[in-house]
Amino acid sequence: MGYEGGTDVVAPVGGAVRDLLRVAPGRTVDLAALDPRATPGLPGLEVTGPDRKGWARRQVRWVGDGLARQQEMLFAGAKADPGAGRRVLLVLQAMDCGGKDGTVKRVVGAMNPLGVHIRAFGPPTAEELRHHFLWRIRQALPPAGRLGVFNRSHYEDILVPRVQERAPEHVWRPRYAEIDDFERELTDGGVAIVKIFLHISYAEQARRLLARLDDPTKHWKYHPSDIDARARWGDYQAAYAELLGRCGSDAAPWYAVPADRKWYRDWAVAHLLRETFDTLSLGYPPADLDIAAERERLLRTTGLPKMNGS
Amino acid sequence: MGYEGGTDVVAPVGGAVRDLLRVAPGRTVDLAALDPRATPGLPGLEVTGPDRKGWARRQVRWVGDGLARQQEMLFAGAKADPGAGRRVLLVLQAMDCGGKDGTVKRVVGAMNPLGVHIRAFGPPTAEELRHHFLWRIRQALPPAGRLGVFNRSHYEDILVPRVQERAPEHVWRPRYAEIDDFERELTDGGVAIVKIFLHISYAEQARRLLARLDDPTKHWKYHPSDIDARARWGDYQAAYAELLGRCGSDAAPWYAVPADRKWYRDWAVAHLLRETFDTLSLGYPPADLDIAAERERLLRTTGLPKMNGS
Repeated sequence: MGYEGGTDVVAPVGGAVRDLLRVAPGRTVDLAALDPRATPGLPGLEVTGPDRKGWARRQVRWVGDGLARQQEMLFAGAKADPGAGRRVLLVLQAMDCGGKDGTVKRVVGAMNPLGVHIRAFGPPTAEELRHHFLWRIRQALPPAGRLGVFNRSHYEDILVPRVQERAPEHVWRPRYAEIDDFERELTDGGVAIVKIFLHISYAEQARRLLARLDDPTKHWKYHPSDIDARARWGDYQAAYAELLGRCGSDAAPWYAVPADRKWYRDWAVAHLLRETFDTLSLGYPPADLDIAAERERLLRTTGLPKMNGS
Repeated sequence: MGYEGGTDVVAPVGGAVRDLLRVAPGRTVDLAALDPRATPGLPGLEVTGPDRKGWARRQVRWVGDGLARQQEMLFAGAKADPGAGRRVLLVLQAMDCGGKDGTVKRVVGAMNPLGVHIRAFGPPTAEELRHHFLWRIRQALPPAGRLGVFNRSHYEDILVPRVQERAPEHVWRPRYAEIDDFERELTDGGVAIVKIFLHISYAEQARRLLARLDDPTKHWKYHPSDIDARARWGDYQAAYAELLGRCGSDAAPWYAVPADRKWYRDWAVAHLLRETFDTLSLGYPPADLDIAAERERLLRTTGLPKMNGS
């Protein structure tokens, strides 16, 4: 398809985005070798045309229409068979300004809000600190049939204690295995987990922080502690590098999405979600109804429909 | 403005939609006199052009852009001043097929999902029945800074017991006053409440039920009990007629939105939400930051932004 028109979703180049962006499990990732401005899978200029940013944004809208349908099928299936418990859980992690909120707005925002269950995790409250670190996470899991979105997650309970030295290693390191067990429990229970690390560069973070300072409508998004966290950039990258390799599995893989270009980030996340939904082979559930009899019952009521439409 | 182009929101005709659709508090409403196909406030053909449906849908998108900004300001304000507790609560009630889900999808869907808190209420569970009828409602209230959406609500606890004769009048009638007190408590606490009854005709309900039966992708939305409830249409209308007049107040008014035409319904609800947000006089909160100092701190970090953009 050329870039001039149409509303078709163009397939990514080089195979599924899942395969292109997936972090190989088992070993520490070399994040420095992952270019935050790269665009893996994005078709070339012969398809996108010179305005590939605009092209990618249009593709996100069309993929979004498909996601909305898939989400509705998931919802319908859960209504027909509440015991099946099928759900999708999108986990978003990133450095400050990495684009978690923007991704939710543009990609998750394409779906019917009734089918979406979003939870954001800040620093644990006093109450939460009195419980196991997974206590608040379990309470935030999506109901059956929903797409759950974690804006930050249980992974903060490894990253922050480690980098900010709030807890010794013998506290945070065993959490890798606890998270493995927890996620296996979820996937065994019908939850498809998509874990995404939005990978931005140190320079891009500075650019975005500066944009927040320069725009009074964005001041509320800025906090002085952002600069403190930035001072530990290298430590965070090292923590992510280990975590992404350590906590990916076939059932709950990690994807590292180059995120300096917001339009590529959205394009990639939309495809990752679509491909995850595809693995569920969703359809509308068959009706447990005698359609002919129900039609008859309805037609026996008065006030039959006028067929002239609106 | 003509109907050919532009992205401007055209003001409703005859004043605020709030004033046009508001149910006068204190007395029983004559629902039979409210035409479900009416379009109060919608500009005439000289503004909308012949395709007024398409025109109204475009207006909903543009009002939606404004709503998204207002919602962000509400969110930002709550972050800056968590104690203020300002929230908006949209309560949606309707007969089956009245369009609650579609309204959420099209109008609420225009806002950032991070700022929206949706709860749907079905028949009370065994656990919920052991509590006061407002127990589950209180748990579902939106956090500060969010738009809460109730898809059905505490009003079901008057409607259903009354019409289905599940409880004697001395059980459900005192709930009017309890709801008054509850809603006054909310509005005193900073919650702007918008209660909307989507008013469809008996014939339109039949048309939509039939459409569900005729489309396998919609079977999951159909339940045989829909026909049983339809058999009590007159009782439900009478119950709504009393309730809308009885439970409206200046602080928590009821609006009756003609809803046979989906595009008018969405247009009206979008304007009602916008006008409610307008009463809050929102703006972005002033920064509790020394901007110059923060800029200096940021610029002292390495990796200064390259200004060539993306």
